[in-house]
Amino acid sequence: MESSSSPKHTIKVAAISGSLRKASFHNGLIRSAIEITNQSIDQMSIEHIDISSLPMLNTDLETDDKFPPEVESFRQKILQADCFLFASPEFNYTVTASLKNAIDWGSRIPNVWADKAAAVISAGGSFGGGLSQYSLRQCGVYLDLHFINKPEFFLNAFEYPPKFDDDGNLIDEEAKERLKAVLLALKAFTLRLQGGS
Amino acid sequence: MESSSSPKHTIKVAAISGSLRKASFHNGLIRSAIEITNQSIDQMSIEHIDISSLPMLNTDLETDDKFPPEVESFRQKILQADCFLFASPEFNYTVTASLKNAIDWGSRIPNVWADKAAAVISAGGSFGGGLSQYSLRQCGVYLDLHFINKPEFFLNAFEYPPKFDDDGNLIDEEAKERLKAVLLALKAFTLRLQGGS
Amino acid sequence: MESSSSPKHTIKVAAISGSLRKASFHNGLIRSAIEITNQSIDQMSIEHIDISSLPMLNTDLETDDKFPPEVESFRQKILQADCFLFASPEFNYTVTASLKNAIDWGSRIPNVWADKAAAVISAGGSFGGGLSQYSLRQCGVYLDLHFINKPEFFLNAFEYPPKFDDDGNLIDEEAKERLKAVLLALKAFTLRLQGGS
Amino acid sequence: MESSSSPKHTIKVAAISGSLRKASFHNGLIRSAIEITNQSIDQMSIEHIDISSLPMLNTDLETDDKFPPEVESFRQKILQADCFLFASPEFNYTVTASLKNAIDWGSRIPNVWADKAAAVISAGGSFGGGLSQYSLRQCGVYLDLHFINKPEFFLNAFEYPPKFDDDGNLIDEEAKERLKAVLLALKAFTLRLQGGS
Repeated sequence: MESSSSPKHTIKVAAISGSLRKASFHNGLIRSAIEITNQSIDQMSIEHIDISSLPMLNTDLETDDKFPPEVESFRQKILQADCFLFASPEFNYTVTASLKNAIDWGSRIPNVWADKAAAVISAGGSFGGGLSQYSLRQCGVYLDLHFINKPEFFLNAFEYPPKFDDDGNLIDEEAKERLKAVLLALKAFTLRLQGGS
Repeated sequence: MESSSSPKHTIKVAAISGSLRKASFHNGLIRSAIEITNQSIDQMSIEHIDISSLPMLNTDLETDDKFPPEVESFRQKILQADCFLFASPEFNYTVTASLKNAIDWGSRIPNVWADKAAAVISAGGSFGGGLSQYSLRQCGVYLDLHFINKPEFFLNAFEYPPKFDDDGNLIDEEAKERLKAVLLALKAFTLRLQGGS
Repeated sequence: MESSSSPKHTIKVAAISGSLRKASFHNGLIRSAIEITNQSIDQMSIEHIDISSLPMLNTDLETDDKFPPEVESFRQKILQADCFLFASPEFNYTVTASLKNAIDWGSRIPNVWADKAAAVISAGGSFGGGLSQYSLRQCGVYLDLHFINKPEFFLNAFEYPPKFDDDGNLIDEEAKERLKAVLLALKAFTLRLQGGS
Repeated sequence: MESSSSPKHTIKVAAISGSLRKASFHNGLIRSAIEITNQSIDQMSIEHIDISSLPMLNTDLETDDKFPPEVESFRQKILQADCFLFASPEFNYTVTASLKNAIDWGSRIPNVWADKAAAVISAGGSFGGGLSQYSLRQCGVYLDLHFINKPEFFLNAFEYPPKFDDDGNLIDEEAKERLKAVLLALKAFTLRLQGGS
């Protein structure tokens, strides 16, 4: 058995942002996560999975046991990932419609999320999007996702000093360190669940 | 001051279904609510507000402080209602993407849901969609909706005898009675909040 | 019909703190609420109901349809209140055991909380105890409490400048203003539900 | 490395019931879990940890960095367990005060729950106590518990045929089979997290 510093394979993380807005903080968090991983986390790679072209879920769209092509393609990417990173904005105290839509398409039988590790991060006012995280964790019970518990990552995006630039790029070093800690915990938990650690 | 049996005006209920599926139980619940109201509840009328044409929320779509036309039209209907009836399916232990999308569009400034009464009903397996209801109630704090507490309406759609026919029409008399009790409570709470009772 | 500035009676608020600790922030929030009310809110009075002597709920303690004497006395005070102010610390992302115990004793048949207005406030780290508030609101559905939605009151107790002194007294003027706004909203919603506004 | 059918050690499950009532269904569920384990699950043993003598949490009771003796003894048992089985009644849509009290004492620094597997079961009306389970899972994020996702165990205690006898013993064979599936999943997840599978 290999040590945890040299897993058998590179861990593939599928990252999903719950915002469709171009300059979204949550897209920025994923860009930062990718950069951090490329620079300083071995044997892990993150791909940002675009969910903007998924149609609104309507099971009448499933014909002959087939999903619409964009859905099929999305589901394949989820299926091939080892674990997930959700960047989940809080709208009205829960997840956004676009994130929920992606989750629901992935959960159609056979559920492509099942039995994998996950982490969730968010930015926003006051609690930094925290309520969306607990909503998502409750979905995760049905999806059979295993979320890491620690560290949690909430970012108050509006406190001084600025956390993001005008394009939504994360510019706060302390936040980047905290984000790296999440990524390392996700890697460790994924390996632990895969029996490779 | 008028008595509660003769309010100043007919209460307008905007009903929203969280399912886009044609034969959806939740569309059926709303059809049944309309029928019950027309037949046996005075001075209240229910309109089913279609949300299927709303684009997925993306605040980049808001230009010159204007919403897309379908959104504008939806928001006008919400604004004109006295109260709301949500038929909220449970997907992955929370509300559907399409319902969340409608909620989020309505909450864009100025929030058109604010300070009105609401009720939520659902049908589904085991708990009859109950988890979607508590998620929706949490959104309601931010939206400033005043949900009735009692009676709650959950319907186990899969227990014998059948509750719906193949077109999604509610056919269970006991469920219809319970639905009527929800509608009467919604009417009473709306009047109470409006100071007209 | 009387105007809202001269209700028929003085509104009695029963205030409950979820902390048994002597120098608790939450006891301090209630002391501050009482002081604010005495100084600047007409026709409302707040009583802090002590819950420290309630036995841990065990329905085996109910004999001959009677509650233990401390429980009986607590229930009488709840029954006589017009509305409630909960100061609810967050422990492990939900309400404390002592607050839950008080809630549960009050809910025993006949439920003494039913159909009254309520507000919840909290102080704590990061989100200021917010997760306890949403848990309590979910209890409130069963209890048939009508929580005000706005304003919400979360207080990050550990940010500079200090919010409390060593005895747990609230010393932050901005927080006192926000607390006063909660109390005014609770008064207004209580009157609205009572039909006296 | 040993196979999952022969772990290095017997897995010790600490079982906790959220009810203090003598004939409680939840105590009955734990008795049944113990019996099932003794009869048909290898290398696992369950101990019912009594929480009835724990004082109501008040951090003023912690003196010289010591806990009251009953609390110390409880914390030792939690610390020595490999994983947890919670039998969690639903009161007012969340966990009971007595269960919350045990959770909170265990979470005092150093948190004795941390990084272990857990399962939760419940019985009750309609949804079979389900809402207490999701509340407990949210606590688990802070406690750093890893709950199994599947299978979930809710038992409608009041449907025909009877599920419990007058002493609270589980008498329903189908429920016992479902309970066994939970225990097997808890065992497997514990081993997986311990790296022993």
